[in-house]
Amino acid sequence: MTDTFVLPHFSIARLAGDRDDDIRARIDSRTKPPGALGQLESLALQLARLYGSESPQLQQPTMLVFAGDHGVTNEGVSIASSAVTGQMVRNFLDGGASINAFCGQSDMALRIVDCGILEPLPAHPMLLDHRLGAGTEPIHLTAAMSEATVARGFANARQLIGELCKAGVNLIGLGEMGIGNTTSASALMAALTGLSSDECIGRGSGIDDKAFLRKQEIVTQALKRHVETFGNPVRMLAALGGFEIVGMTGAVLAAAERRMGVLVDGFITTVAALAACHIEPAARDYLIFAHCSGEKGHAALLNHLSAEPLLSLNLRMGEGSGAALALPLLRSALAFYNEMASFEQAGVVV
Amino acid sequence: MTDTFVLPHFSIARLAGDRDDDIRARIDSRTKPPGALGQLESLALQLARLYGSESPQLQQPTMLVFAGDHGVTNEGVSIASSAVTGQMVRNFLDGGASINAFCGQSDMALRIVDCGILEPLPAHPMLLDHRLGAGTEPIHLTAAMSEATVARGFANARQLIGELCKAGVNLIGLGEMGIGNTTSASALMAALTGLSSDECIGRGSGIDDKAFLRKQEIVTQALKRHVETFGNPVRMLAALGGFEIVGMTGAVLAAAERRMGVLVDGFITTVAALAACHIEPAARDYLIFAHCSGEKGHAALLNHLSAEPLLSLNLRMGEGSGAALALPLLRSALAFYNEMASFEQAGVVV
Repeated sequence: MTDTFVLPHFSIARLAGDRDDDIRARIDSRTKPPGALGQLESLALQLARLYGSESPQLQQPTMLVFAGDHGVTNEGVSIASSAVTGQMVRNFLDGGASINAFCGQSDMALRIVDCGILEPLPAHPMLLDHRLGAGTEPIHLTAAMSEATVARGFANARQLIGELCKAGVNLIGLGEMGIGNTTSASALMAALTGLSSDECIGRGSGIDDKAFLRKQEIVTQALKRHVETFGNPVRMLAALGGFEIVGMTGAVLAAAERRMGVLVDGFITTVAALAACHIEPAARDYLIFAHCSGEKGHAALLNHLSAEPLLSLNLRMGEGSGAALALPLLRSALAFYNEMASFEQAGVVV
Repeated sequence: MTDTFVLPHFSIARLAGDRDDDIRARIDSRTKPPGALGQLESLALQLARLYGSESPQLQQPTMLVFAGDHGVTNEGVSIASSAVTGQMVRNFLDGGASINAFCGQSDMALRIVDCGILEPLPAHPMLLDHRLGAGTEPIHLTAAMSEATVARGFANARQLIGELCKAGVNLIGLGEMGIGNTTSASALMAALTGLSSDECIGRGSGIDDKAFLRKQEIVTQALKRHVETFGNPVRMLAALGGFEIVGMTGAVLAAAERRMGVLVDGFITTVAALAACHIEPAARDYLIFAHCSGEKGHAALLNHLSAEPLLSLNLRMGEGSGAALALPLLRSALAFYNEMASFEQAGVVV
């Protein structure tokens, strides 16, 4: 069966730099040595580009955790079975996971998006149904999903982002849950960046040597099988992706289209963001990279995106945890930009 | 005149590790792969040692910004004159500085401790009078202050910490303001660590080559002049220190004595903390290192203390800014420790 489908087109404006001189002048006139706030100054610049140079503000920052299951998980590439994806989603809904604790601390709303875990869960106010199936196909044997499915995933994400935008949200965090998804993300990273698969494959949640070797075989086999998709990011997503990865890629594109900032979490979310940049390079301007994780491949991936992550705490947690942890730094960057006195106002004469 | 004085003795207990097994078991049983929260896990361990393994909590975290002036500033070692110290203190009291913005974001109380800026300021509810003089003596020509003055500084700090402890505060942040104080701190770092002065001297708030050369000369001259004090941390503080550095060293010792955590900011505060560890090695257990700054010498200094800083944002701001920025990470470490479900509670079976 060949599905007929329409791939959404996302219309994304580059974040104009035409007020950069004003923004930089404001930053430099605050009562501090020039450049003394380091990375917070470039963050303030990006946020002022995004939200206006006069009084940029975050509004209702919302963490979206995209969940999905993976056909390759049966191959022994993870410490856990696919059932754990659903168990962890229930844990999110019950408030017992790290992302609950961190969103609570960072005053960040939390929504879980079921993009296709093995078995659907009962309805819950925090849970959104974007199901594209009951787990993907195993990528070393066939395509993870059809291109039509990718298109549906993008359309779902666009609808969600549209609703959030209407509700006043201007920043989303990207998180994920999906046992086996570092395998998919490693394959996508290799396909998208051209880096060797060795540079892209890590230990995920902490697999042993045997599982690691199997993961390398699976990724190598998947890359070989789907080499004809390389160069076309939508086809690469269909071949190698996961339902939650597709959801995140769509969310990045839709958020950028709506001029919302996107706070990117760890390895898997960064791969999804990279895929979005391959589809629409202007999406890059809307990305804020929360942290460099302990997962092998993430540092090289961030470097490939010329990204300066805010945190480097050796996390390898997923769930959006690093993004929720980094959110206070965004608020502080805006606080210094909006609230600090100038040398003139403070009567400080250097 | 030889002052007679009594140096306070600080009685500091090592933070016992006798509940470490329980604490680690609790951390490992939360719904996450083992070790997946990286540096937040060692932070949670330290905080649980400090505040109890059952339900550790931060109480009224309070930033103390110690201010003082430096005789060497007349030598052209800074981008600013000593007058700017007082101007910036006024800026703190007026709420216009970065530390005001960051403490506001991090819900941290803020007190400014005048340890000896050039001219005293009018009374203000946020301002504490711990004045030891009107700026130190130039350290390349004579001792910065007497040992009796160090003793007074320690006693002042101990009284303040006692009051905060009674009021329920269990964590202080250390910040500083003092034009010229990286010169003093670099000299102290070299004297305390035995590292070459080249490794200890940086550009401070951003000095040019001429000022940098002068700074090197001043530090070299000061180290030569006061070499006979090496090995005695109180004499080193008197010879090379600053009033605000002495205040911070005393605050670290007094806080540790009261079982309060100390969130250390940048280069100068870390030097003060190192001096405290030379006086009482047990103080090390109470130190939490907020960030690695952009100031040359800070990375080597942190390494000397086997410290793992939480942030690395290339700040070179002082004022306690990095400590205030890092506070949310402490809260999040406690939130995961206190709030996350165990595998058993969540019904997650890996």
